[in-house]
Amino acid sequence: MKFNYSIGTKVIFGNDCIRQNGKALSVYGKKTLIVTGSKSARESGALDDVCDTLISQGIAFEIYDRVENNPSLDNVAEGGMKARECKADFIIGIGGGSPLDASKAVAVLAANDMEPLELYGNKFKYDPLPIIAIPTTAGTGSEVTPYSILTRSDMQTKMSFGNDATFPRIAFMDAKYTESMPWEVTVNTAVDALSHAVEGYLSRKSTPIGDILAVEAIKSFGECISSLIDNRIGREIREKLLYAAMLGGMVISHTGTTIVHGMGYNLTYFMGIPHGKANGFLLKEYFNFNYDIAMVKIDRIFQLLKIRNADEFGSLMDVLLPDRPKLGREEIAKFSFITMQQRSTLSNIREVNKSDIEEILEKAFMFSPVK
Amino acid sequence: MKFNYSIGTKVIFGNDCIRQNGKALSVYGKKTLIVTGSKSARESGALDDVCDTLISQGIAFEIYDRVENNPSLDNVAEGGMKARECKADFIIGIGGGSPLDASKAVAVLAANDMEPLELYGNKFKYDPLPIIAIPTTAGTGSEVTPYSILTRSDMQTKMSFGNDATFPRIAFMDAKYTESMPWEVTVNTAVDALSHAVEGYLSRKSTPIGDILAVEAIKSFGECISSLIDNRIGREIREKLLYAAMLGGMVISHTGTTIVHGMGYNLTYFMGIPHGKANGFLLKEYFNFNYDIAMVKIDRIFQLLKIRNADEFGSLMDVLLPDRPKLGREEIAKFSFITMQQRSTLSNIREVNKSDIEEILEKAFMFSPVK
Repeated sequence: MKFNYSIGTKVIFGNDCIRQNGKALSVYGKKTLIVTGSKSARESGALDDVCDTLISQGIAFEIYDRVENNPSLDNVAEGGMKARECKADFIIGIGGGSPLDASKAVAVLAANDMEPLELYGNKFKYDPLPIIAIPTTAGTGSEVTPYSILTRSDMQTKMSFGNDATFPRIAFMDAKYTESMPWEVTVNTAVDALSHAVEGYLSRKSTPIGDILAVEAIKSFGECISSLIDNRIGREIREKLLYAAMLGGMVISHTGTTIVHGMGYNLTYFMGIPHGKANGFLLKEYFNFNYDIAMVKIDRIFQLLKIRNADEFGSLMDVLLPDRPKLGREEIAKFSFITMQQRSTLSNIREVNKSDIEEILEKAFMFSPVK
Repeated sequence: MKFNYSIGTKVIFGNDCIRQNGKALSVYGKKTLIVTGSKSARESGALDDVCDTLISQGIAFEIYDRVENNPSLDNVAEGGMKARECKADFIIGIGGGSPLDASKAVAVLAANDMEPLELYGNKFKYDPLPIIAIPTTAGTGSEVTPYSILTRSDMQTKMSFGNDATFPRIAFMDAKYTESMPWEVTVNTAVDALSHAVEGYLSRKSTPIGDILAVEAIKSFGECISSLIDNRIGREIREKLLYAAMLGGMVISHTGTTIVHGMGYNLTYFMGIPHGKANGFLLKEYFNFNYDIAMVKIDRIFQLLKIRNADEFGSLMDVLLPDRPKLGREEIAKFSFITMQQRSTLSNIREVNKSDIEEILEKAFMFSPVK
């Protein structure tokens, strides 16, 4: 038995957790920059809760609400500049994966005079500003991971950086903030969480303790399937999905992701397909590809989801994720090439080469019916 | 759903983990004090591994090897003085629960000019020195908890302090260090780990994520039972026990313990019965006492241990833990009074009063056969 375990984040999970735990923020300083997108922090009510809490704690704040979907290096550079200008002592990220990931980059860039591309060196002269993460989606798990996934236009994909210092210090997790998500976003992000748990569980880097967190995440997702299908998503289901997303984040904090994410980034970068949906389109063929090597674990996943096999899983995804695109041979060749550049591809339980990736993409996108 | 989750410790688990990860120590400074008892650090080989690693990393060290079994406040005060004198930047605790718990107190007292009794205020002006924990037993879980349990002679019991700052920064967990334990110590400490998992699982403060860690710990202990009984304890079983102990520690980091520990401390303080053994003597009646309130969870525990009921659990403990003492009415009254002073008593899933504690102690120690 050989493994590492470390989650550098303190999770505070539950209804009204921010307002009830404002004191926890006061140790991080007197001035904060809130990093968020243009909408979800406001619509979800999280921004109001945070601002009221900061005022009650006597903490001054400014808001940087220009985080893009799938943020670019320029985008986080602007945020870092803003944090330096306003002399923030710490950063509060509010939103889905994009704002949370951006907040980590902003925290590093605020403390270090460096080019954004240097983030990928994963060595920072000065510790990043402390990061507080408040998710408004239930998928990314970014609130409990050290990872920041940014768009690398130089490499035509998304790519992650992060080390022990980029774990958020605190994750405030309140499921009511996820209620403003429309059905599509709820489903897409839930499938992203499932993908984290599944990929971590089947990773070459899987760990005993990661596995039990993954099993719990998959089980929790399984308990939400019928509610997702029927769009009957009450608070209890919202909490279960947020819990599953958190667990998925803890899993990949130890294992990273594998080829599903590596392939999926292409669909997001080139075709604008939402991240979780892109992963979901790929999972069935991922199970098929790895089945002979990881039969016991994959069967356990099916059992936890109360389905019998990869085909049934595929049918489930077809219901949850409409509008599967079709890809041509050229795109498949390009996407496969790019996927092979991702470090995470090396962690796949079955060794993969470019033609394996091509075959998975063909099965997923060439011969499948368009809905 | 409402819970907090935080494990402030990075776990590095596996054969030769110290020698392979010496670099991880270098960030903590140039001088360390090793805090340990007189024997286990040397006999287990851990001290050699640590000293060689420190030398290779250019870190100077001194050794304080006077930690007593069930350390007193005077004992940790002496260690704190030693750490200040030698200007240690960080503390390395090596051993079972006593040295690891002492190292936390030493780390606080080295950084703060305070009376040891003030440790129980749980507020420290200056952060404790960073703590590195290296267990040589598989039971306490102290390597992943913030708790330091010291003997309070003023209150005639053992009592814990600890906050987020007393989590060890790193736990190096190498099962070979536990091989020098004789059978009795192996069993007693393993039962302590089981007790942590069980008490946390059944605690009023139990959490969803704590529960899955507890279930894994109980399952792992269950897989070791026949090896423990037969004293065929190879490396694989040693690893499983160390893993279970770690999980148990993570569980009680969130939940604390309950009445088993509260009652057990009396047997240790007044009768010198080893800590884990004391808990083991009490678990059967603890199950009986709580059964009506926590039937589902207790049945799950029995199932994980592959036994049918509390009586079978009692028989198992009789095999593993010989020499159950007898107690008189006066002792039982005294122990019950003291148990009711422990904060952890409030966390028991079923509300308890002094006469409940008396009844449990009577059933456990008055009418049971002396072996």
